[in-house]
Amino acid sequence: MTTEKSLIDSALRGWKFNVERADELFGGLSPGQLEQEVALGKNRLIYLWGHLAAVNDRLLPLFGIGERLHPEFDGMFISNPDKSVQLTVSGESLKAAWPEINEKLWEGFSKFSASDWAQRHTAVSEQDFEREPHRNRFGVLLGRTAHLTYHMGQAALARPKA
Amino acid sequence: MTTEKSLIDSALRGWKFNVERADELFGGLSPGQLEQEVALGKNRLIYLWGHLAAVNDRLLPLFGIGERLHPEFDGMFISNPDKSVQLTVSGESLKAAWPEINEKLWEGFSKFSASDWAQRHTAVSEQDFEREPHRNRFGVLLGRTAHLTYHMGQAALARPKA
Repeated sequence: MTTEKSLIDSALRGWKFNVERADELFGGLSPGQLEQEVALGKNRLIYLWGHLAAVNDRLLPLFGIGERLHPEFDGMFISNPDKSVQLTVSGESLKAAWPEINEKLWEGFSKFSASDWAQRHTAVSEQDFEREPHRNRFGVLLGRTAHLTYHMGQAALARPKA
Repeated sequence: MTTEKSLIDSALRGWKFNVERADELFGGLSPGQLEQEVALGKNRLIYLWGHLAAVNDRLLPLFGIGERLHPEFDGMFISNPDKSVQLTVSGESLKAAWPEINEKLWEGFSKFSASDWAQRHTAVSEQDFEREPHRNRFGVLLGRTAHLTYHMGQAALARPKA
């Protein structure tokens, strides 16, 4: 394996590991458990799960992989804080959406060459990218992995004891 | 910048960003605030900070950068859970240790070439590395960044409102 490939392989392993960890953590919860707050007065588990699903879904157009699968998640899980909007999405639908989004992403990720990863994503103009070459797909992948683990740490606090 | 360098640059930016974010979050807290739990019955902020400092300190020998600066942190912050051992380390000493450890790490990181990053770390034998080439420094850097953000997400729950 070339050095480039090996670096990308590490990042993809980290991504996949945490996506699967989220699936295990959230996917096993009952509707009642999903209503739990991660700490007193903080986000509910269902909100965190929806938030992570929406953020991943947004990667599809950002990386030029395809159209979004669930643009309707944004109003409930990104642009508004928890408990401010009625959720029209259930735990069951998130359980279906999570792998659906992540499989489509993974399919796209698998086709990227090393230089595709080092290329700008669709929210950066060519001009900006010349000045700021770190605004590439790889940086976004790492940033989104960090965002995922940030909220996983929170979700773990409310996870029911085995 | 070559593709390899650009990938490593992204990972180092992510690391540094989160190390600095931790410095801002924990470094501004009073001794009383550091005693706060991130959620009812969970780790205190001072424990999380010490835990992150100890984990980073362990990277020094793991990456072959140098000797540990604070091996005494392990008993308080890694091998034992919070509130089970009397802490002999104050918030003030963590405030000094955090940048000290991270500057020494950064100095080491800055000297690594792309192929150094793709090389095995000191806890993997040559034989194991042949079978599992992803057990390299770069994978550990990404894993530790994820670990850092995992606990930062928790710490953010207890951060006093500005």
